[in-house]
Amino acid sequence: MTELTLYIGNKNYSSWSLRPWLALQHSGLPFREVLLPLRQPDSKAQFLALSPAGKVPVLRHGDVVIWESLAICEYLAELAPQAGLWPSGSAARAHARSIANEMHAGFGGLRANLPMDLRSDRRAQSRAHLVAAEIARIGDIWRQARLDFGRHLGGPFLFGSFTIADAMYAPVVSRFRTYGVTLDEVGAAYMSAILDWPAFRAWEAAAAAEGAVIDFDIFEQPR
Amino acid sequence: MTELTLYIGNKNYSSWSLRPWLALQHSGLPFREVLLPLRQPDSKAQFLALSPAGKVPVLRHGDVVIWESLAICEYLAELAPQAGLWPSGSAARAHARSIANEMHAGFGGLRANLPMDLRSDRRAQSRAHLVAAEIARIGDIWRQARLDFGRHLGGPFLFGSFTIADAMYAPVVSRFRTYGVTLDEVGAAYMSAILDWPAFRAWEAAAAAEGAVIDFDIFEQPR
Repeated sequence: MTELTLYIGNKNYSSWSLRPWLALQHSGLPFREVLLPLRQPDSKAQFLALSPAGKVPVLRHGDVVIWESLAICEYLAELAPQAGLWPSGSAARAHARSIANEMHAGFGGLRANLPMDLRSDRRAQSRAHLVAAEIARIGDIWRQARLDFGRHLGGPFLFGSFTIADAMYAPVVSRFRTYGVTLDEVGAAYMSAILDWPAFRAWEAAAAAEGAVIDFDIFEQPR
Repeated sequence: MTELTLYIGNKNYSSWSLRPWLALQHSGLPFREVLLPLRQPDSKAQFLALSPAGKVPVLRHGDVVIWESLAICEYLAELAPQAGLWPSGSAARAHARSIANEMHAGFGGLRANLPMDLRSDRRAQSRAHLVAAEIARIGDIWRQARLDFGRHLGGPFLFGSFTIADAMYAPVVSRFRTYGVTLDEVGAAYMSAILDWPAFRAWEAAAAAEGAVIDFDIFEQPR
């Protein structure tokens, strides 16, 4: 089989890299990962050599180059249909794509003020109060998905078993932990499901092992 | 068949509404459209009554409610496979989803500085110089898609015949015309393909007929 290679940024910081990585882990497909450090003098040149958008993550599969995390996830869903990366029901799938896209294009305040920093505890410096409306919306998204779909389909994730919608929100869960954002019972249970999930924990352990390779203000990292 | 209803904003301004509307036109599926004026005192309440994200466009199909333009387009692609809303080849489809997602989540400068205003000529007030890098990237996206895919597949669109990728970039074409942005020969030909396309012209005629119903500074409309 043609080799799949996922190019990612630093595991501690790169929330966009985490998303397709989780989907790829869940797909069961063998893949190679290549970590390209962010914020190095040649980072931009390296990213541009990979894809014309000049960003990570990028998936290569033979001659096919896919950049944009959600496009990568859609590609994996087609490549590994048995993994159920989208819910099988049409209504659930439409709902999952709506919330995945809402995350992909939105929540700019959250991204700017609560950047992912997996191995840190930043509760004392939390800026969560600045993005209360976005946090409330995310709580609503998780609650609605769990109550309308996940609970009935079985399993702890938004649509029961793991889907791309969970991949899209997993970095948000890690941010909420880092910055001390607490939710209602449904939200707290969902956060535990992500944080306890073996694939997430494997990424987290790798992030911890990276060490402090980047020297920049976490609040100034590019979106 | 269960009725499809697309809720949209004003045709002159709502670039996000135009996208799924074009895809829906191309799908061949019968649908009803409901225009909810933007910027009215009760706009937000109307949008929230439709979908929890509180924005248009929204597609309703029986009990299924889909917000987010790209999620709507994916739903239509599944519902009307014969319409070919994505390219049929896997590599072309992956490329189309990459550029569709890049548009969906990016180009914030373009959206803020060159907002859609279909019936106007704003060349004299153009802020295109402020977003030259984004314009260049869009020119590259169109050129690469046309040269690598569209030209070989046949037809004037990015992947030959019309796909969701064209739906995502159609509002950009209209902005480039409005603000006097000119591109290379490949880009100019692509712009003509969109601007001459009957579905686009039908939307444009409706936008012209709306009249100046909104009284606000075009540069301050929300993104």
